[in-house]
Amino acid sequence: MTVDSVSRERIPVAVLGATGSVGQRFVQLLADHPWFRLAEVVASERSAGKRYADAAEWRLETLLPTEAASLGVMSLGDKLQSRLVFSGLDSSVAGEAEELYANQGCVVVSNAKNHRMGADVPLLIPEINAAHCDAIATQQKRRGGRGYIVTNPNCSTVGLAMAIAPLEAKWGIDTMHVTTMQAISGAGYAGVASYAILDNVIPYIGGAEEHKIESEPQKILGKWDGAQFVDAGFRTSAQVNRVPVIDGHLMTIWLSLKNDPQSVDALIDAVRNFTAEPQALNLPTAPERPLHYIDAIDRPQPRLDRDRERGMAVSVGRLRASSLGGYCMVALVHNTIRGAAGAALLNAELLDAKGLL
Amino acid sequence: MTVDSVSRERIPVAVLGATGSVGQRFVQLLADHPWFRLAEVVASERSAGKRYADAAEWRLETLLPTEAASLGVMSLGDKLQSRLVFSGLDSSVAGEAEELYANQGCVVVSNAKNHRMGADVPLLIPEINAAHCDAIATQQKRRGGRGYIVTNPNCSTVGLAMAIAPLEAKWGIDTMHVTTMQAISGAGYAGVASYAILDNVIPYIGGAEEHKIESEPQKILGKWDGAQFVDAGFRTSAQVNRVPVIDGHLMTIWLSLKNDPQSVDALIDAVRNFTAEPQALNLPTAPERPLHYIDAIDRPQPRLDRDRERGMAVSVGRLRASSLGGYCMVALVHNTIRGAAGAALLNAELLDAKGLL
Amino acid sequence: MTVDSVSRERIPVAVLGATGSVGQRFVQLLADHPWFRLAEVVASERSAGKRYADAAEWRLETLLPTEAASLGVMSLGDKLQSRLVFSGLDSSVAGEAEELYANQGCVVVSNAKNHRMGADVPLLIPEINAAHCDAIATQQKRRGGRGYIVTNPNCSTVGLAMAIAPLEAKWGIDTMHVTTMQAISGAGYAGVASYAILDNVIPYIGGAEEHKIESEPQKILGKWDGAQFVDAGFRTSAQVNRVPVIDGHLMTIWLSLKNDPQSVDALIDAVRNFTAEPQALNLPTAPERPLHYIDAIDRPQPRLDRDRERGMAVSVGRLRASSLGGYCMVALVHNTIRGAAGAALLNAELLDAKGLL
Amino acid sequence: MTVDSVSRERIPVAVLGATGSVGQRFVQLLADHPWFRLAEVVASERSAGKRYADAAEWRLETLLPTEAASLGVMSLGDKLQSRLVFSGLDSSVAGEAEELYANQGCVVVSNAKNHRMGADVPLLIPEINAAHCDAIATQQKRRGGRGYIVTNPNCSTVGLAMAIAPLEAKWGIDTMHVTTMQAISGAGYAGVASYAILDNVIPYIGGAEEHKIESEPQKILGKWDGAQFVDAGFRTSAQVNRVPVIDGHLMTIWLSLKNDPQSVDALIDAVRNFTAEPQALNLPTAPERPLHYIDAIDRPQPRLDRDRERGMAVSVGRLRASSLGGYCMVALVHNTIRGAAGAALLNAELLDAKGLL
Repeated sequence: MTVDSVSRERIPVAVLGATGSVGQRFVQLLADHPWFRLAEVVASERSAGKRYADAAEWRLETLLPTEAASLGVMSLGDKLQSRLVFSGLDSSVAGEAEELYANQGCVVVSNAKNHRMGADVPLLIPEINAAHCDAIATQQKRRGGRGYIVTNPNCSTVGLAMAIAPLEAKWGIDTMHVTTMQAISGAGYAGVASYAILDNVIPYIGGAEEHKIESEPQKILGKWDGAQFVDAGFRTSAQVNRVPVIDGHLMTIWLSLKNDPQSVDALIDAVRNFTAEPQALNLPTAPERPLHYIDAIDRPQPRLDRDRERGMAVSVGRLRASSLGGYCMVALVHNTIRGAAGAALLNAELLDAKGLL
Repeated sequence: MTVDSVSRERIPVAVLGATGSVGQRFVQLLADHPWFRLAEVVASERSAGKRYADAAEWRLETLLPTEAASLGVMSLGDKLQSRLVFSGLDSSVAGEAEELYANQGCVVVSNAKNHRMGADVPLLIPEINAAHCDAIATQQKRRGGRGYIVTNPNCSTVGLAMAIAPLEAKWGIDTMHVTTMQAISGAGYAGVASYAILDNVIPYIGGAEEHKIESEPQKILGKWDGAQFVDAGFRTSAQVNRVPVIDGHLMTIWLSLKNDPQSVDALIDAVRNFTAEPQALNLPTAPERPLHYIDAIDRPQPRLDRDRERGMAVSVGRLRASSLGGYCMVALVHNTIRGAAGAALLNAELLDAKGLL
Repeated sequence: MTVDSVSRERIPVAVLGATGSVGQRFVQLLADHPWFRLAEVVASERSAGKRYADAAEWRLETLLPTEAASLGVMSLGDKLQSRLVFSGLDSSVAGEAEELYANQGCVVVSNAKNHRMGADVPLLIPEINAAHCDAIATQQKRRGGRGYIVTNPNCSTVGLAMAIAPLEAKWGIDTMHVTTMQAISGAGYAGVASYAILDNVIPYIGGAEEHKIESEPQKILGKWDGAQFVDAGFRTSAQVNRVPVIDGHLMTIWLSLKNDPQSVDALIDAVRNFTAEPQALNLPTAPERPLHYIDAIDRPQPRLDRDRERGMAVSVGRLRASSLGGYCMVALVHNTIRGAAGAALLNAELLDAKGLL
Repeated sequence: MTVDSVSRERIPVAVLGATGSVGQRFVQLLADHPWFRLAEVVASERSAGKRYADAAEWRLETLLPTEAASLGVMSLGDKLQSRLVFSGLDSSVAGEAEELYANQGCVVVSNAKNHRMGADVPLLIPEINAAHCDAIATQQKRRGGRGYIVTNPNCSTVGLAMAIAPLEAKWGIDTMHVTTMQAISGAGYAGVASYAILDNVIPYIGGAEEHKIESEPQKILGKWDGAQFVDAGFRTSAQVNRVPVIDGHLMTIWLSLKNDPQSVDALIDAVRNFTAEPQALNLPTAPERPLHYIDAIDRPQPRLDRDRERGMAVSVGRLRASSLGGYCMVALVHNTIRGAAGAALLNAELLDAKGLL
């Protein structure tokens, strides 16, 4: 089943936190989107009332989309015309604001961390757990309306979860150690001072980053049993670092499996052949191949590989047997596209394709 | 016992590969050395016969030492006046050249990888295995003369081995996972193209870097039993990366112990209180404290911490219990000082203090 | 007049130096080109006989084009099937090789510096001096055949010449001071060691870079009088620097004019409204607007503005009156696209549109 | 005449803005100073009452000096015990606070821009205009007390003024064009976001940076005529850029002279031989040679040359005749040492040596 992207009008959408770094990515990715049309931009009091072009200090490599430039910025809390709402809000305000709009009947597709672990809130990666959408009915019932929230994971978690998904499916993950090397854009525009990171690496990221990477994959790769989410049965240890890279989180992964894959080639083949519902549905933002396995001995690399499939593919390389037993590999995810705004967009497309909008 | 550094003449020394990046560090560190005096500089045919100032394209932040500038560059293989010889040679030529000089009666203190795993060649970190010098007599007997070779480990290995030494000594290491983020200077001046590494990380380093980190600590933390080296009994898995940092290899470490330390604080105290023979001997290049444990949540960092104790201290931080069991920590080593030329210098000082020169 | 890009077969072309950094850009830009089809790739002896995918260590952010991957690499000097030949050769070999192919009847569109100042060789920027193509007939007569060479300028020169073209046309340039801040890709893949440029600026570029910038604009903005090129009548002083930027040469320009423009706004309008023959001809690689004047006080910036119009537009900003008299401005050019391979491609399109192929 | 640095007690001093980036440099440079002893640290309300070690988030490569660590932070406006006060205050508060302390009788040696152009306030570079101290008596008379303010120039201005000082003295400067490439530390710790500057150059610096560079040298190289400062008679045009460099402002300079130096060598000799009152007085912070002329064709470079003479020497290179007439050169200044805290320290030493404290 595919969705015909021509024969209907584009759905009007709102972006919350539209002037921030994730918000700007939403605005960029929504330009020329075949299903969605950017209709409303929402930001803080300070920006409200201005033209978007004046309120947003635009910092992406592409030009500010013309259609977005002249939109008037609305204030957080204002009543929206759009039912579909993308949230690029900072976590300091996202929790309450998203709750408000969901309770007003909006479908809030959020990149913020606040509701990710909610008991009836899907933490969605369409290639992995599209079935978690079944929790939406439970959430709507709780809210007593049509509104609900779905979330996408932490930027590093997306890369990790996708890289291991085919291995978990076939052989079961037992234990993982992950070390991330994360790009500065993950901290937002002003998040990392240049004086802090030039000629340097910082072995720490605030906001309980390590805890997110250790816990979110459990929910993502787990199951919705009709009443609650049941964790996947593996354990993870994470050590995170900030590196002087613009975009693209790279990570080294060591893992042990529950069942013996017999050969490294079997693992590589599983990565290479991984495909899922977004590909079958031909969702507009979905990559043709969610995972790119790269044979070159020194790949993936952030600058060379982050933009594969418009930043929506996760790249994997150097999969090999470890001297300790278990396996080593390297994974890369474009943190502000597949790890943030692009992830949310794909989530919304899945909801639309499933008739949940 | 300490060595009196005033009452005697300085020992003349030679540097092999003196124009390369490790060689330049030797020349820098030997300026004003209380025990050793740079007397001979040796390089490839191409440089031979020139003044050192003309042959070396000097690239360090300090000025070329005046005494070194006017030395005439000798050719590799030339007969040396100095008995003590530091080798900063590239591994493509180090094997044979070091063998030659050792067989001629020289004490070759080498940074090259070629002889590190030799059956009677100490792979020396004076804070850890000064007792491995006992193998020297065996080596001299084999050579039938007074000459011998001692080596220092791979630059990352030094940081790793020192960081874990007090833990191995007290509780025994069982298993380790290490991910390194290594500075570009580790590859020599022209080793990493800027086009390759700016805004990037490369998850690979040639020359079997991962294998070195997995195997060398076994020898270093093992024992010389009078006839051969016996490995320490732990296992290590390494994943290496090159990052856009000038100097300083940072690494994340996960490890499990054979015996229960009861608390994280016990581990931290062991790191903090670590001291050894070079400190007792007051060797001129030895740091006052070989390990600096830093409490700040986001340290050590290469740019801020690599120069502690003139680059000779290894910094450790973020030691904590892992969600998997075992412990996580971060370590940093100045790769061209403690991880290369400074390591060799300290080795030579130990040999001198032990009467082995 | 526009050229119909649909109704005819694509012209087969060869790329000389196809495995180098400029050559890779040619291969990238020729993929899906509406008029030209990459038919032959030529490189050094070392690569000859291999598949292009194996010979080229592909280093661009986009994937190696499928059609190029399986081409067999030919050896420099081999007889070509293609009449149109793009040269991304290094200047050490370009002089002779381009001469050879031109004398064999090929149209050699070169990025190398060797023939730029040739007495009958156009140094072409289609927006500025398309009329210089008149020299081709003279050159063909000299060669006694249909072959000829056209060249594009030095990468910084392209940015400078385009930025000043509308000012020269309206008011006449008298004197210029230029300081460049040039990206590392301008030196080729291995041209700048990371150890040399991280946390650094190098106030020098070899190969007489400053001389090129001081002399080439004279020819470009001058005239072909039917028998020879006559220099434009201004004088230029250049000081060049290498900066840690991947792509994009930024330059500060101070200039004085022969005639009074009355206002800064007149100058800005001239930049904004600049358009020329490639735009009128609708050449496929031509930018819609060759010059983008950016109002923001801190632009253009290499990372944010180098990719405007697929790297083919030159960006200009901060045009203002100088405290000294004269005017200041800042210009930016994508050095490997508009300043190299893209420039050559546009030159070839102009030749085709003028019936000179 | 030299000052004996042993036979007297060290003078207690205060640092205003002690937790900021310039303030930290003051604290670093005052450790072990032979004449001055850090006695008081002053910062904003937020830090007041804390130990300095707790209030300052220390970010320099050397460790926080032990003596400073335990000082209690005072609040801006608190009465000070020290008569000598170094100000590293931000310009938003420096104007008023410095005025307050000067009127209370303190000698305020300031790095802030607020009072630099004051009619009776020396804008001091001891190598150039030590005689401007004669204005202090006038200023004291105006204030009706012993207190006064002296200032040091903008960080780029220091490098420019010193590099041209010997040329101005011998041949007279007529006109200058300057393009700066300034390090990120010039903007303070959080001044430049890494997302803004990695793989980038920003052709703009706020706070009227260009105006400062165009106007301050006029005062510095001018004269105090007993009643007022008289400008030097040259004109300057400046274009400024921020580059991804930690420390060290590099600048290209083109200049024309009033009198003919006959040869480039005469200019180079004047730079090489430049020496002045701080050297004659043997001031502790003074470099042995204020200007280092470097012959290498690609120097000075920020990373390699910024630390010459502990960051107090200005490096000059590539002095050559310009194709336009006049001369080109390149200069480098360590912006947070010679261009800020070190400059102020040297100013205070001059005041002390002249008996003005």
